[in-house]
Order: sequence, then structure tokens, then C-alpha cells
Amino acid sequence: MGTSVSETHSSSLHPENNNSNVAEEEGGTTLSKKAAKKEAMKQEKLKLQQESAAAAAAALASASIESDPLSENYGEVALQDMQSKAVTGRKWIRIGLVNESLKDKTVLVRGRIQTTRPVGKNIGFLVLREQGFTIQCVLTVAENLISRQMVKFATSLSKESHVDVEGIVSVPDAPIKGATQQVELQIRKIYGISKALPMLPINIDDAARSEADIEKAMQSGEKFVHVNQDTRLNFRVLDLRTPANQGIFRIQSQVETAFRNYLLSKDFVGIHTPKLIAGSSEGGNPAFLAQSPQLHKQLSICSDFMGVFEVGPVFRAEDSFTHRHLCEFTGLDVEMEIKEHYFEVMDILDGLFVAIFGSLNENCKKELEAIWEQYPFKPLKYLRKTLRLTFEEGVQILKEAGVEVDPLGDLNTEVERKLGKLVLEKYGTEFYMLHRYPSAVRPFYTMPCYDNPAYSNSFDVFIRGEEIISGGQRVHVPELLRTREEGLGIDQAYIDGFQYGTAPHGGFGAGLERVVMLFCALNNIRKTSLFSRDPHRISP
Amino acid sequence: MGTSVSETHSSSLHPENNNSNVAEEEGGTTLSKKAAKKEAMKQEKLKLQQESAAAAAAALASASIESDPLSENYGEVALQDMQSKAVTGRKWIRIGLVNESLKDKTVLVRGRIQTTRPVGKNIGFLVLREQGFTIQCVLTVAENLISRQMVKFATSLSKESHVDVEGIVSVPDAPIKGATQQVELQIRKIYGISKALPMLPINIDDAARSEADIEKAMQSGEKFVHVNQDTRLNFRVLDLRTPANQGIFRIQSQVETAFRNYLLSKDFVGIHTPKLIAGSSEGGNPAFLAQSPQLHKQLSICSDFMGVFEVGPVFRAEDSFTHRHLCEFTGLDVEMEIKEHYFEVMDILDGLFVAIFGSLNENCKKELEAIWEQYPFKPLKYLRKTLRLTFEEGVQILKEAGVEVDPLGDLNTEVERKLGKLVLEKYGTEFYMLHRYPSAVRPFYTMPCYDNPAYSNSFDVFIRGEEIISGGQRVHVPELLRTREEGLGIDQAYIDGFQYGTAPHGGFGAGLERVVMLFCALNNIRKTSLFSRDPHRISP
Repeated sequence: MGTSVSETHSSSLHPENNNSNVAEEEGGTTLSKKAAKKEAMKQEKLKLQQESAAAAAAALASASIESDPLSENYGEVALQDMQSKAVTGRKWIRIGLVNESLKDKTVLVRGRIQTTRPVGKNIGFLVLREQGFTIQCVLTVAENLISRQMVKFATSLSKESHVDVEGIVSVPDAPIKGATQQVELQIRKIYGISKALPMLPINIDDAARSEADIEKAMQSGEKFVHVNQDTRLNFRVLDLRTPANQGIFRIQSQVETAFRNYLLSKDFVGIHTPKLIAGSSEGGNPAFLAQSPQLHKQLSICSDFMGVFEVGPVFRAEDSFTHRHLCEFTGLDVEMEIKEHYFEVMDILDGLFVAIFGSLNENCKKELEAIWEQYPFKPLKYLRKTLRLTFEEGVQILKEAGVEVDPLGDLNTEVERKLGKLVLEKYGTEFYMLHRYPSAVRPFYTMPCYDNPAYSNSFDVFIRGEEIISGGQRVHVPELLRTREEGLGIDQAYIDGFQYGTAPHGGFGAGLERVVMLFCALNNIRKTSLFSRDPHRISP
Repeated sequence: MGTSVSETHSSSLHPENNNSNVAEEEGGTTLSKKAAKKEAMKQEKLKLQQESAAAAAAALASASIESDPLSENYGEVALQDMQSKAVTGRKWIRIGLVNESLKDKTVLVRGRIQTTRPVGKNIGFLVLREQGFTIQCVLTVAENLISRQMVKFATSLSKESHVDVEGIVSVPDAPIKGATQQVELQIRKIYGISKALPMLPINIDDAARSEADIEKAMQSGEKFVHVNQDTRLNFRVLDLRTPANQGIFRIQSQVETAFRNYLLSKDFVGIHTPKLIAGSSEGGNPAFLAQSPQLHKQLSICSDFMGVFEVGPVFRAEDSFTHRHLCEFTGLDVEMEIKEHYFEVMDILDGLFVAIFGSLNENCKKELEAIWEQYPFKPLKYLRKTLRLTFEEGVQILKEAGVEVDPLGDLNTEVERKLGKLVLEKYGTEFYMLHRYPSAVRPFYTMPCYDNPAYSNSFDVFIRGEEIISGGQRVHVPELLRTREEGLGIDQAYIDGFQYGTAPHGGFGAGLERVVMLFCALNNIRKTSLFSRDPHRISP
């Protein structure tokens, strides 16, 4: 399952180390020993450069400010003044809200320095950023208002530092390029709130560069910095500031909200099951991390909650590097009583995911656009009533296209993708369910089909040709469960829990990161995990 | 911190082993070796009894049914018929919805056997339960409709087994005691869906007995079964079926929903931070479990999300048994940029918890009543605008009441309770905030006060005299953080994350289980943890 990875990207921190290898970023690219050493030396060098640059800038700034009679209008804010000294009643306005309606008004904003540009000694331009929004700010030397030292101070600020800017909103005649807000701020006061190191390991502009621009640059032979996946993850706090990443994690939050809201509306109960679980070995009772909430969400059904869901971490001791596996991900889990058929579970799943997709398209337009800007993709094609095919029908569709697979085996990743393409052609959907899987490829707790034990009451769900959800009806009869788990070393508490009356039930599990990845057609699950964990990454 | 536990309760599975020790159930009561052995033998005996009873019942049932011409109207459903054989279109109605408006209608319900009572050979009464709701069902022998064997089958069903019952709704003249629904079902068909062991380790009636009834029984010398906390937790799937427990976990789900909704309305982003984190030791890079999302929620602020929250597991290597500590609990965490004062964080906290309390009182009346029935408590007294006292003011209030405490030390649990009482008397609230804690008792990342480094920009929040939330302004300046963490062995990634521009920020963390416990005035956090984990409990 999953593709393995051969290529590694070397880190490229400096423009001169232009790495124009923009092949698809697959897998958890780990550096070779040599590359790692080179990387460490580069980091060390960068650190020294950073330190000396910072010291020089600080010396320069304090020297020039002291002698300026206008020094009250600018400068670094002292630590003491950021230690909750007073509630002054000042109102900061979000940069995204500064627009033409505020023309000639004085406003106060807090933002990061995106760029600085001095024009001679008397004029300076800054672009400030707050989350996805940017605004151009202008300083022009004027008597009793703006000094040359103030222009120098402002244009010497390091990128990504925070500043408070008080200024007057003006509306220029020409459209402003390079900023989202179509107004300018005429700076009156500017104070440094935080200081970023003057040399950053990643420039946000580089990290945010669109795949289209990279393509163009490559074709024209233009030099540019390509920030590879490993560097992004090493300096994730910078990488996350790009508009695409801001969008990705707001979308992730929205998926969870839509998931919860739909299930709550169907009278499901949100639960939290333990992640520390007993091992199967006798005696010592060692603790393990839950590979899924399977056991406890089923025990919750035994406990009369009827329908439950959980959003929580799931741990996997993955040892393969693929674009879609992590050692820790966020599970979206559902379990529910069923009256007579596992289609009841599929009905909930169907309504749920159609609701999630709808809510993303409806509520996250801006976020989807931000992602699209950097990583172009086409909106997901899905039906209002989700297509259901049996596994046997899937095998038949493949056969008709000349792909022979074991009718009682599993589909590998490649075949799943192929089937996805065929289904899209035939039914016009990139989201569909495949059910009645062969029993041999499902876990022991899966209920066999009533008419043929070689098949099971189970399903997988696919987005864009990749498996995203697994589920099915569970064996609820303890005697049957006992015969099926034999030799698997299952915790006895699991089966004991079923012997006090357990209704037929079923459920499914999905991965939050994978839902976001595939909805947005991203190529690596590390893009949708806030701080990802794989066998070679446990920090930051 | 926390009280330690001396008393242990022996398990009492049988009425004759009446354990009338109903002292407050404190802590994670563990059995002594001798008691454990006794308990194991008792369990073994119970198991043998269960097995032989089950075999006898099965033999009896099948023998008598075979010869009955009305056998189609009752019996055990075959496994095959529960393997998703068909979607029949039958509609089950929830027991809670069966009422007078359905008089004379035929309905189909699925519920658990709460009680069975044969009256002679021709009449049988059953009470069925579905979640909190119960309904009385009646069987009367009638030609071509109900046979004696059918009455026998129905009244022989073991408690907690599931049955499908088809019956006609009738409205009796007298009110029905012992069932929530004020209608009766005249049974026409009854089928066994699941079988519970005939002898249960906990009877739901015993587990659900109110503290008032226990008190009464004790005073009158009446015999009754007291189910102690350890037995409840050993057989949690039974214990969770009581109305109070059904209420507790629906309230827990509602707390989370209200928490999320409030913060989403303030433009916070829901995040999931990794639970596997790097150790501080050099080299090997061993993984640990996150003791809080502190590091990563702060890094999320460094990453421009401005305001974030997380609901997720938090792991603590607790070695003390107290009524309020667990090895694993569900953290409610918040982190946000602040413009100038940590009061901004307290404002969010204030609005958030007042909203949560309001939503519980508004939306969970039924659940609160169910808990109140078993564990009487008074509704939480809180103000619409939460009281804020400085730590120094708290110390002063204590002093005036004759309690001397170290003005630069921490408050112990007992003193916290005392202060809670004094605050309630003086200000009429059981929910209040205490801020400007001494720096010495706060973590290294806490921002000191601008005017006195012996105090810090931090706060604790109390419900009913117990600490429930901790928070404050964080040190956002990497240089200052470095001097403060020295020797603590903090992961370098933590501080590195701050050096690319970090705005002033703060936040807080609460425990979901503790919020529910204290809102409902329950006496043990194990009551509000679905499957609790303490140093002696890792199963089920």
C-alpha cells in the first residue's frame, strides 16, 4: 500500500543554491548523511550571519534614534510596555478591514513586515501583513512629523517582525500591486513589537510561490528559490504563514465543524476515548497508544450511546514513507447502532460527506482560492447522492478496462487510482463507495455477508482515486467474535464488553488530514498536518 | 495537592454481600492483594454461574418454541438475519417517542430488557429501555395470538438483552410507575436481538440508585447493593447505561460544542497539535507524549493563526490518587495574540465559560435532572460578568478569615476550597478568577508583571472552590525565554520558533472532565471520564 520514495531534495536556503528540481514532492524526503551534514553546516553559517546582522542593526538603530527630536513617533517598544502595563482603550483594526470607507481616518494596525523599500533617504515603503491580508504603508519626510531617521528605522526593520503602525488612510489613483488592500497608509507612528532574525531560513515569498510561477521561471531559465518540503517542515512556523497554508488549516477546522454539526443534528454524542490502552500480553499490563478508537467506540455502543463520534489523534507505527501516511493523524470516527443493514451507516456517511463538501464550497471560498493560487486544482466532482458500487462491480469495471485483479484480494494503490479514473469517466464522480469487500482483506471484527462469508458487510470510500474512509458492520455476537479473534491477542476487555447485550452496529473512520488533502488535490499529507510526524520527524 | 486515599471498597456483586459502606467515594480505590484475589475468585464463580444459566436458558427456550404453532411471533433472531440481509423498509420508533398520540397504533421498538415479571402462566410484563426512556409492555395469552410459550419466552429473557417488540399502544387509566412513558405496549411480536449474560456483574438498578435512596435504606437498615466506584469502572459498559451517566456524557459533548462554537464565532481556528513530541535529551530523539499542547499552540500563534483552540488528549504521569487527577484527560486549550494586556485573554475566557454554563442550563435540562436524581446538587452560582480578584486580594480575604498563607507561594487544595467559600459568601459566585499569581509558582514561560517580577501576568480560575483553568501571558521574546528556561531541558524547537517574529500572546487550558465534574458538583473525576486512566487502571 502506498508508494515508496526514491528522490530526495537538498535544502536550498539561498538564491545562489538554486534548486530547480521541482518534481512532485513525494513522501517524507529524508536527507542522506552527507546532505544532512551539509545542511547542518549551512544552518550554522546562517545562524552566525543572523547574529552579526542583528547586532549591527540594533547598534545602528539605537544610535540614530537617540538624537532625533521626533523619536517619540517611532522605535522599538520596550519589553516592559508589553508586559500588560495598562489597558489603554486603543483600538487596533484588522488590516483586512482597512478599506476606502476609512479614507482620511487615522487607524492603528498591527502587522508583520512583509517588505521594506527605501526610495532615496526621504521616502520609504512598507508592506504590512496580517494573516492573508496586506497593506502598503508610506513614509515621507515632513517637518515636525517624519524624520530621515524614522524613514531609516522603518525601512531597516527585518522581514516578519511585528510593528504597530498608526497612519492615515489614503486612496491612490492607480491600483496597488503587491497588496490585497486597495488603500495606502500614510504612516505617522511606527513601533517595533517583535523582532525577527534579519536572515530567515525561508522567505515567505519563496514559500508562497505558485506552481505556475515556478514552471514559468524554469522555462525561462530565471533564477528562483525552491523551498523543498523538508525545509518547510523544519521551519514550519514560517511555512505556515503562506496564504495557502493559512487556507489549508482554516479548511481543516471547517471540516471538523461540519463533521460535528451534521452528526450532532442526527443525535450522535461526541466522545473522547482513551489513547493509552492495555497491551494484549498477559501480566505486566503495559500501555500502548491506540491505533484507532475502534475498541472504545464500539464499547460506547455497548454503553447505550446509540450513535457516537470522535475527533482525536490516532497513532500508527508506519515505517513506510509515502505521500499519504503519517505516524500520527487526526481520526474522524463514527459508530452507530444499526437496525437491519449496514446501508444505514453508509447513508449517514453519504449525508455527512456531502454536507462537509458543501460547507467547504460555501464557507471557504477565500481559503480555497488561496490554495488554488499556489497549487492549482479543480473542484471535486461529487454527486448529491453518492454512488455505491459493490467490490465485485468494481472488479468488473476494471476487467472491462483490461485490468485483472484477484476478486477476493485487496486493490493496490495503483489499481485504486485506475478504478477512480474509470468511475469518473462512467459516472462523473470523484467520490464513491465500494462495498461488500472480500472478508480476507478486512479486520476480524467485520461482519461477513449473510449470503457468502467470503465477502463482508464493509466498505471503503474513495476521493480522487484514493481511499479515504473504511467502515462496515461489526460482529456484535461475542461467541462469533471469540472464534474470529483467536490467536490475534486481542484485549479480553474488548470481547467481555459485548456479553452484556450488544445491538447490531457499524461505523467508519476517516483521516482529517487526508480529507483535506484529497478535497484540495494536494500531493502530500504533510501539507495538511499542522506539525507532521513520520518515522523521521518528531520536531518541531 | 489533592487528597490521598485510605479507604478501599470491596466489590459487592451479590445482594447478600451487602456493602453498606457509602462513605464518599474518593480516589482511584485499588484493591489490596487479598481483596484482589477474593475478587478474582468471585468473578470466576460468577462466570461459571453465568455459563450454566445461559446454557439452561437456551435449551429451555428452543425446546418449548419448536412445538408452538405461534412460534413465528417470537424467538431469537438468527445471526444470518442480522447480517444485513435486506432493507425491509420497517420503521423502528424510539421508545422516548411512544406516547398517547399513538394510541391504538401498532409500533415497532428496539430496546433492552430492563425487567421481566411473569404473573402466573398467562400474563407477563416487561419494561424495555432505550437510553433514558422506558416503556411497559404486556403479554396476555390469547388464542391465535399469544401462547403460553411466548409469555414464557418473553419473561425468561435476560436483563439488558435487546429485543424487537411489535405492539399496540394503549393508554391505561392509572399512571404507570417504573417507566418513563405513560402508555403501555400490548405485545404482538417479540424477537431477541442480543443476549446478555443472565447474571450481570452490575444491575443497572443498583448502579442507578440515588444517593438519597441509599441514605434512606441505610437508616432503615434495609439491605441493598452498593456498587462501588471500582466495580463500576471494571464493568463500565453496564455502568454507563444509567440515566445519570447517559446525562453526564451528553453534557460533556455539549460543553465541547459550546466551547467550539463560541471560539469559532470569535474567529479562532480549531487545530490539532502532535501528541508525540521530541524529548529534551540530546541524540536518540526519543518520543514522549505531550503533557499539554502548550508548545505547539504557541507555535501556532508564531504561525499567524492569531487565535487557536484545541480539544484533545493530554497525558500526565500522575502518581497520586486523588478525586480529580487522571493520567489522561481531554484538554480544552486556547491561545491568542494579545494587543496590550492579558485581560484580553481573561475577557475571552469569561465570555466563553459564561456561554458554556448558559448552554448547559438551556440545552441540557433533561440530562441535568437525570444526574440530579442520582447525585443531588445545586446549580452553579455564577455572575454574568465573572469576578476577578488579584492573588494579593485573595490572600487578604483569607487573612481576614484567619488563614495565613505565603503571599509568594501557591495555595493548596484545602486553602483553595476555603477561599472559594469566602468568595461565595462575599460575592455570591462559585466561579471566579484569581490573577497576578506569584512568579515562583508559575511555569518558566509565564510573563512577569511589568511592575514587580515577583508576580506574573497569570491566572487560575475556580469552580466550587476547585481550580479548573490555568492561563496567562507568555514570554514572547526569545532572548528572555532562553534565560528563563536555562537548565530545564526544553526542546530547542520551542525557542527557535519564537525568533522569526512573535507577537505578544497568552492563553489558557482547562480539563473537559473537570469542567463537567465541577459544574455538576460530582465528587470524582472518574465519573466524568468515559473510560478513565489512572496509574492502576488501563482497561477497559
